[in-house]
Amino acid sequence: MKARTLSFMSVALMALPLAAQAQDSAPIAQNTEIGFIFTTFMFLVSGFLVFFMAAGFAMLEAGLVRSKNVTMQLTKNMGLFGLASIFYYVIGYNLMYPGDGWSIDGILGAFSIAAMEPVGLEGAEPDLSYASVGSDFFFQLMFCAATASIVSGALAERIKLWPFLIFAIVLTAVIYPIQASWKWGGGFLDGMGFQDFAGSTVVHSVGGWAALTGAIILGPRLGKYKNGRVTAFPGSNLALATLGTFILWLGWFGFNGGSQLYMDTAGNVADISRIFVNTNTAAAAGAIAALILTQVMYKKPDLTMVLNGALAGLVSITAEPLAPSLPLATLIGAVGGVIVVFTVPLLDKLQIDDVVGAIPVHLFAGIWGTLAVVLSNGDANLMTQLTAIIIVGAFVSVASTAVWLALKFTVGLRVDEQTEIDGLDMSELGMEAYPDFTAA
Amino acid sequence: MKARTLSFMSVALMALPLAAQAQDSAPIAQNTEIGFIFTTFMFLVSGFLVFFMAAGFAMLEAGLVRSKNVTMQLTKNMGLFGLASIFYYVIGYNLMYPGDGWSIDGILGAFSIAAMEPVGLEGAEPDLSYASVGSDFFFQLMFCAATASIVSGALAERIKLWPFLIFAIVLTAVIYPIQASWKWGGGFLDGMGFQDFAGSTVVHSVGGWAALTGAIILGPRLGKYKNGRVTAFPGSNLALATLGTFILWLGWFGFNGGSQLYMDTAGNVADISRIFVNTNTAAAAGAIAALILTQVMYKKPDLTMVLNGALAGLVSITAEPLAPSLPLATLIGAVGGVIVVFTVPLLDKLQIDDVVGAIPVHLFAGIWGTLAVVLSNGDANLMTQLTAIIIVGAFVSVASTAVWLALKFTVGLRVDEQTEIDGLDMSELGMEAYPDFTAA
Amino acid sequence: MKARTLSFMSVALMALPLAAQAQDSAPIAQNTEIGFIFTTFMFLVSGFLVFFMAAGFAMLEAGLVRSKNVTMQLTKNMGLFGLASIFYYVIGYNLMYPGDGWSIDGILGAFSIAAMEPVGLEGAEPDLSYASVGSDFFFQLMFCAATASIVSGALAERIKLWPFLIFAIVLTAVIYPIQASWKWGGGFLDGMGFQDFAGSTVVHSVGGWAALTGAIILGPRLGKYKNGRVTAFPGSNLALATLGTFILWLGWFGFNGGSQLYMDTAGNVADISRIFVNTNTAAAAGAIAALILTQVMYKKPDLTMVLNGALAGLVSITAEPLAPSLPLATLIGAVGGVIVVFTVPLLDKLQIDDVVGAIPVHLFAGIWGTLAVVLSNGDANLMTQLTAIIIVGAFVSVASTAVWLALKFTVGLRVDEQTEIDGLDMSELGMEAYPDFTAA
Repeated sequence: MKARTLSFMSVALMALPLAAQAQDSAPIAQNTEIGFIFTTFMFLVSGFLVFFMAAGFAMLEAGLVRSKNVTMQLTKNMGLFGLASIFYYVIGYNLMYPGDGWSIDGILGAFSIAAMEPVGLEGAEPDLSYASVGSDFFFQLMFCAATASIVSGALAERIKLWPFLIFAIVLTAVIYPIQASWKWGGGFLDGMGFQDFAGSTVVHSVGGWAALTGAIILGPRLGKYKNGRVTAFPGSNLALATLGTFILWLGWFGFNGGSQLYMDTAGNVADISRIFVNTNTAAAAGAIAALILTQVMYKKPDLTMVLNGALAGLVSITAEPLAPSLPLATLIGAVGGVIVVFTVPLLDKLQIDDVVGAIPVHLFAGIWGTLAVVLSNGDANLMTQLTAIIIVGAFVSVASTAVWLALKFTVGLRVDEQTEIDGLDMSELGMEAYPDFTAA
Repeated sequence: MKARTLSFMSVALMALPLAAQAQDSAPIAQNTEIGFIFTTFMFLVSGFLVFFMAAGFAMLEAGLVRSKNVTMQLTKNMGLFGLASIFYYVIGYNLMYPGDGWSIDGILGAFSIAAMEPVGLEGAEPDLSYASVGSDFFFQLMFCAATASIVSGALAERIKLWPFLIFAIVLTAVIYPIQASWKWGGGFLDGMGFQDFAGSTVVHSVGGWAALTGAIILGPRLGKYKNGRVTAFPGSNLALATLGTFILWLGWFGFNGGSQLYMDTAGNVADISRIFVNTNTAAAAGAIAALILTQVMYKKPDLTMVLNGALAGLVSITAEPLAPSLPLATLIGAVGGVIVVFTVPLLDKLQIDDVVGAIPVHLFAGIWGTLAVVLSNGDANLMTQLTAIIIVGAFVSVASTAVWLALKFTVGLRVDEQTEIDGLDMSELGMEAYPDFTAA
Repeated sequence: MKARTLSFMSVALMALPLAAQAQDSAPIAQNTEIGFIFTTFMFLVSGFLVFFMAAGFAMLEAGLVRSKNVTMQLTKNMGLFGLASIFYYVIGYNLMYPGDGWSIDGILGAFSIAAMEPVGLEGAEPDLSYASVGSDFFFQLMFCAATASIVSGALAERIKLWPFLIFAIVLTAVIYPIQASWKWGGGFLDGMGFQDFAGSTVVHSVGGWAALTGAIILGPRLGKYKNGRVTAFPGSNLALATLGTFILWLGWFGFNGGSQLYMDTAGNVADISRIFVNTNTAAAAGAIAALILTQVMYKKPDLTMVLNGALAGLVSITAEPLAPSLPLATLIGAVGGVIVVFTVPLLDKLQIDDVVGAIPVHLFAGIWGTLAVVLSNGDANLMTQLTAIIIVGAFVSVASTAVWLALKFTVGLRVDEQTEIDGLDMSELGMEAYPDFTAA
């Protein structure tokens, strides 16, 4: 059994007497098949919701880039998801759950191909107190792929296809799994008492740090910052961007809800319900905060800020979607929305060009969400949370920088100027996304 | 426990001996944890499907307005959903289930913040015969939000953002919950024997009445009706509108299926299956009826009528998706489609400008569906159904009119003429939805 | 009980002792209500995922046709799904599960209206070892409708609306159900030992053969093949096409996962998990194979090939998504992607004009997937697989050809030249999909 399971199971076992106490009838014994079916099916449903986030990211990003780069953005999103799906089973999954630890056997085992349980569980000794290995893998894979999706948006409109995809391979096969093992693989951050329920830090800030280092090394798009002025490059299709946001919001119910990891008792399914409600509330609050704030600050509400506000609300609640009350979830999400409205222009001032706002949404709101855990979760300690944020941030930044620089000085990261001006679609792919419509 | 639960549970209990009779083995005891997990998870799955309808409405409406108003329509849809998510827990939910009735305590309790069960059900005494409070809230919230989504489409392209959003707050926090309590909160309409399984009246006609009064008070778009002639303003993106329709259709399986309220017995899950099939059949019949009818009447099939026909089929079956046979579900849905084809031009004749056809779909087909309950549900009485339709219609129309007029004579409802001509996107928001493409 | 159930149940029963052996506790008895609820709900969830594939096909096709034909393509997709939903219950469902065989009673019974179980299972004797009839019908209907969706893409941009819809009726009411009964209705292909888990042959190749015969009889679009040269007609909206692909990928989890047919034991839910993982892996591999291959062959990765590569990977794994290991699933999917890259130009050489690449994806990859079953499923025999492919192919080709020719020589199949040049949207429907944007 995976260490993640063990660490979470202790929580579940802790909750068990309480749950039992509250019930008229005996609880489902943890070792029966029924609980196994419930939890496994819950992972599959949660997993397909998180899978669909890949479409959400693709639509959000395709909607926020200029029409001349849409085909490229779509290709990157399809490509990164495909590669993550392969490399996570080839390397990442076992690396994330190292099992025997860092002995020679453990290291070799960690870099090995994931295997599912046999058909019909024939000859297997499944851990009926948890879920099928296949469903756990499916669910975990989708988290890993989401990390890479975060990066693709920030670096849009100027990074070459293949260097980006190579980075995505390293991120999903090695960087993400190693740091995820520190918390979810039962590693030292978990041992320290670091709390990150569904990954404000483990998933979102990781994507954010990778995006930030990439954006700095890559540099801004041509003409974005000229003579100290910021030029807006409006997204080509806000309907798609809105659709993408709704799809991500939908997927987040699986992202946070499934991270309860168990659905075998009344207590667990009631907790998943709490998580759904808090997740939705935080997203709503993030959107409304951004709506009101842009109205007040700019006199005109800004839809792209509202969309990113919703996403920031979601990221903010991800580290602790279970414990907060509804008003607290509202506050946590709203602060996420506020962070986006203030940090998008801040990045522009620093001339860090993040095409879709991924860094404010996933990194800055991710940090906020990780700290906000202390507001409702008695087991969380502010210094521990901060320490973990810094450790993960340092590791991912250093590792990402090394990969970005290695790519830059070998195959090159950035398309040439003329390609960027013409758009990556025609120059790199020879295919426009909207060929029948006259581009401005 | 909520009154809705009580009233439905009596039905479930009634069905129990019959179900038991049909089974080889003993039925699951109503008070066990397994039934609680089944029903709670069913609410969560149904709830996320209904959540996704918010995206469906947004895409449908964004596709049916002109390109110069798309960003505004998207902003309204994001905004209304966010506000509904907050105000329904702050006020609406407890108002809908008044519990202690209209004593002072009851009224104060009704206007109070909703609370979920504690984490892990610690110290709670959950009603294991039903579902977790969180899952019930999540499911109910999505119905409430859908009501506001109905309004936004009808009033598109000329209503100001904030007055619309204020109306959405009042609708979701007060108007919807009060009338919903009459049926689903165990109120007097429920006592009268009014039958409305998933809300042809309680949800759809409510949105429809609010839209109708709004459309009348707001007046038609500039140039829509000139010298007695109707000018068509074609939707800017029929692919999006079709996507929105498919998403709504998908969400409706949760809308109607989840309204069974229990999935703890073979009888209940078999009923949910019936509901899925009838819901799909009615949608199909509505679409095909509109397809054939527009072919016959205009010699050219009209896709927007087909889309609205499908939606009208869905609204029509919503009051009673369980009892009809497949041929009857086909008939009920087809009549819904016919209603749309005939009443869209009728509204135009009355110079009531409903941009997306929301009033024919949700109000007229909603009335039809509520009456059609008598065709298959022996507990339904035509006069009772009619009485409830009128009472709900009168209440919502009067309340909505009051709010619309109050907004009109204070902050104003409508953008100025130049803004409407230029499009709300650039004038009000400074942001086009499709900036790279030349608008006609 | 349906024969399909019987044939699969024998597999399930076979697996039972093994599953039991692996478990700490006694397995859920096959005849209890809990298993019935699990399996029924699994069908409903799988079914709504497969339903959503209708939206996926619609978006994929709308994105790959030229803007002047988008409204027509959307109308065809809405129409075919609506008609399939009606005619499958009127004729198809009982024809697919002939029950009493080909006696007079059996034939009359086969051509009869499907009926669900009564409300609350009142007076019914449900087979508690399986699932509710309604959920089975719902799931099966979606497979049937998918078959027709495959055809609509291949014949786009030149076939008339009503002849296409008439073909869709015959396909979904008669052709699909008859051949499906041979395998899934317990017919002679099933008796022969033919293995097709979720329908690489029974669903996908059937749509493919119908598309192929239609494309040949209909002829290519005007100007597609001139003086031996192929003119590219680029799709009008690659963002929509990508969205459609992601939606299809999502739906496929239900398509393949639900085809396990049981979720009442730990073994079954673990198998569904395996299926989810293999399905995802094969799709990823198909996409990546096409990405790499188009990079190598054309120096420019081709997004439409990547999308079709993912779909071909999905079709390839559909005949056996359970047995393969992860590396084998990768191989099977990758070969599907390779097939697409090589056979799309092959069809062009033969001047068979398949607008969206449906024939390579669904027919050629479907044949590959059906043969590839022998790589992992010990019960499969290469000659039997080949024989079944040929028998189904011959039947569907002959039947489809007969229908296409009958339509051609009565109502006519193809729009006239001017209509095709102007686009079907304005000429046939009087409605553009994107009226605000200047078409090139």
